[in-house]
Amino acid sequence: MNTRLVVIGGVAAGMSAAARAKRHNPSLEVSVFERSGYVSYSACGLPFYISGVVKDVTGLIARTPERFAADGIHVHLKHEAIAIDPGAGTVAVRDLATGTLRDVAYDRLILASGAQATRPNVPGAHLAGVFTLRTVEDADAIKAWLAVQKPRTAVIVGAGYVGIELAESICAHGVDVTVIEAQDQVMPSLDADLAAKVQQTLEDMGIHIQLGARLTSFVGAGLVGDVVARVLGRMSGEAPRMSGDLLRVREVVTSTGSLPADIVILGGGARPAAELARAAGIALGATGAVAVDAEQRTNLPEIWAAGAVGETYHRLLKKPIYFPLARAATLQGRVAGVNAASRREAAGSARFPGTLGTSVVKAFGLTIALTGLTERQAKAAGFDAANVTVTSTSRAGFMPGSERIQTRLVFENGSGRLLGAQMVGGDEVAKRLDVVAAALQAGWTAEDLAEADLTYTPPVAPLWDGSLSAATLAARQIQR
Amino acid sequence: MNTRLVVIGGVAAGMSAAARAKRHNPSLEVSVFERSGYVSYSACGLPFYISGVVKDVTGLIARTPERFAADGIHVHLKHEAIAIDPGAGTVAVRDLATGTLRDVAYDRLILASGAQATRPNVPGAHLAGVFTLRTVEDADAIKAWLAVQKPRTAVIVGAGYVGIELAESICAHGVDVTVIEAQDQVMPSLDADLAAKVQQTLEDMGIHIQLGARLTSFVGAGLVGDVVARVLGRMSGEAPRMSGDLLRVREVVTSTGSLPADIVILGGGARPAAELARAAGIALGATGAVAVDAEQRTNLPEIWAAGAVGETYHRLLKKPIYFPLARAATLQGRVAGVNAASRREAAGSARFPGTLGTSVVKAFGLTIALTGLTERQAKAAGFDAANVTVTSTSRAGFMPGSERIQTRLVFENGSGRLLGAQMVGGDEVAKRLDVVAAALQAGWTAEDLAEADLTYTPPVAPLWDGSLSAATLAARQIQR
Repeated sequence: MNTRLVVIGGVAAGMSAAARAKRHNPSLEVSVFERSGYVSYSACGLPFYISGVVKDVTGLIARTPERFAADGIHVHLKHEAIAIDPGAGTVAVRDLATGTLRDVAYDRLILASGAQATRPNVPGAHLAGVFTLRTVEDADAIKAWLAVQKPRTAVIVGAGYVGIELAESICAHGVDVTVIEAQDQVMPSLDADLAAKVQQTLEDMGIHIQLGARLTSFVGAGLVGDVVARVLGRMSGEAPRMSGDLLRVREVVTSTGSLPADIVILGGGARPAAELARAAGIALGATGAVAVDAEQRTNLPEIWAAGAVGETYHRLLKKPIYFPLARAATLQGRVAGVNAASRREAAGSARFPGTLGTSVVKAFGLTIALTGLTERQAKAAGFDAANVTVTSTSRAGFMPGSERIQTRLVFENGSGRLLGAQMVGGDEVAKRLDVVAAALQAGWTAEDLAEADLTYTPPVAPLWDGSLSAATLAARQIQR
Repeated sequence: MNTRLVVIGGVAAGMSAAARAKRHNPSLEVSVFERSGYVSYSACGLPFYISGVVKDVTGLIARTPERFAADGIHVHLKHEAIAIDPGAGTVAVRDLATGTLRDVAYDRLILASGAQATRPNVPGAHLAGVFTLRTVEDADAIKAWLAVQKPRTAVIVGAGYVGIELAESICAHGVDVTVIEAQDQVMPSLDADLAAKVQQTLEDMGIHIQLGARLTSFVGAGLVGDVVARVLGRMSGEAPRMSGDLLRVREVVTSTGSLPADIVILGGGARPAAELARAAGIALGATGAVAVDAEQRTNLPEIWAAGAVGETYHRLLKKPIYFPLARAATLQGRVAGVNAASRREAAGSARFPGTLGTSVVKAFGLTIALTGLTERQAKAAGFDAANVTVTSTSRAGFMPGSERIQTRLVFENGSGRLLGAQMVGGDEVAKRLDVVAAALQAGWTAEDLAEADLTYTPPVAPLWDGSLSAATLAARQIQR
């Protein structure tokens, strides 16, 4: 009998794992169980589906279940893994359409159940019109609410990457948007002065921002009609709502006051969907996510984990963190897939090299990208860190259309080693930041980057690109 | 008495050297002698000044002689170094305005006389209307000819980077442009199939291309008026023309036929302005350019060289080549400046780490970038090289405005080490290529690049950027 690989979860990590495993070992029997109605979709694309920039949800789907089936991978949509029995080598799976439960036997298991959106523990968090966003169904529910309820006011909870993208998505529907954030700046992962620039851009575009605003409650008023309730219930894929839930949200109350809100989207705070793992005896790390080694193995034999359900090793911090990002999820999925598909103790098993936390968001024309550590993070991790900031141009300064880019480099005194970068500017900052991400991976000093042989031509790139100017300045300022 | 540093040539390498030397050792007496009427200008910006995209020549000037003077650097414009006497420690300098000659004493000398445009040795090469392009004066002469003579047809000689930029510059004036190239493809530094794509784009934009066309002669007809002749003579900064030169170019004859041409620009073939050095006993390398070590020293004591007058060490070929590029020139100038400004045998002298030949051109909306070696170059250098090519998108494929990018990676079988890349697409290919340039500098294998933690967000960068997809494919195809 062929070896049976079961994959729980079919988004970035799960489908990468399944595809890579099957390619690595075509004799493998690969089954994927996914709770939602879609696999292999771009979760990062959902805000652009909500805004209408992406018209059709099929655009977000990299490969359909039919395509996977043609490659010999069996995808089971709307099937939820309820429990794992490592001793018996089975997963209890519920068919959400029929409610039937069955045990699926595995020889090897990859846990890629992702993250789950969390609702804050405050009154009214389950009112109709208060949304989370993880799945295509969530996005469809938000779109339906926008279309049917025609909200005039929206509150986005959380001013991180997703919150800012969602502010633009909802603003695109002509809704008056307020973003509330418990911390004292937008984009808490960014340095405060750069975050202030982002905030200014958002405010210039008509978005209201309330900082230091902790959620107290959601207040409802008026019932949604039965039809809407049914549509929303079906679309969101959530359990049937209690009658009290059919009250419509009307107001968000925070530590700083109260705001009208015809729609609320909870933009922050996903946590690993690790309860299934914990209950099965799979060890969690200090972050609460599944602990894995470089081969994506859990503590239990024959069980690997990948993506947002688990921790991610950080190349610079040299320890696991919880920071679910699509690229790491995809790479981890591949590693888990190759290893789960290999003969036991096979030579050349795949290893996940770690993340740098490289991330980027574009909203309202502004692109913000970062990689590695901020100075604060670096100091907290024990580095003797310093930083430099330069303003450069996207093209040669004399070319029309040249835009300003702010680049901050964080480096270690003594060694001069680069530790991180933040950039704010137009679209072009993403790939400029990637050069620094490569430099971090290579363990470069500021001098190494300063002398890099990068492209230069006036209409596209200046002679002294921001990373080069910043590295040159940093090299001069390193305290030996 | 303070140490006297003399710098010959005041464009990228020379002014970097002068500025860096003065900063490194403020007591230094720094003098720069520049043959043309401008220093510190962007030679790479000249095609955009000719096209009119850059309106004012002052935009091309990074720092004026007055700014340099304020920093204690004495700039002498229109002063040509005629001879170096290393024994006496003097440079004979001619004031081109007055014709007077004087000896300038130096303690240390940096040779940054750049490259000189060459006219082919064929009949008519000195006809009025046949231009080269190195200096602001050359660009002014071309602009004057365009304005006064209103040419209908133009021939650009050479389909390399400069030739293609010039095709666009001249086309912008409504002139019918033909580019002739002796080799059998445009962009000879690019692989033939990618070059064919560039050619197609040029042809789609109405540019005529003639490949395998070797120059035979230029044919003149009709005299330019005295006023025009004087204006052009003055602008070009060339020696007064003989009366026969005042014949206007009308036709270009090549091995493949004859072409009407009211203006001709020689876009290729610069050679090092190294005659001055050779005559002084400074050793030239096999390429004909001045030989330098990693500290930019020539064979003679107290004499350094930087930029297009000299050779450039190639990081991958591990030998000097002649490939004058602005970024290398600037870095070499800095190295020469620091070293010439340091006490003899000072610790920590600066070193130029070498070039990867990273280059990029944008014309007619297409951006073409390359770094490192092509497969052909790599094989010629003894590498067991192979390549992969992928087509990727500039954004997530589902986002509107996503453009196609072709990426070719060259790698070494066995080690998997990356050797080079070529990319063709929109503006965004330049910074994408830079990631590969960083990878080459770091000595990465295809696997190293495949697992790089690069930015991803749908509106700006796809999950699998071209370099990542290509590296992943390459990692699979490496022959061990």
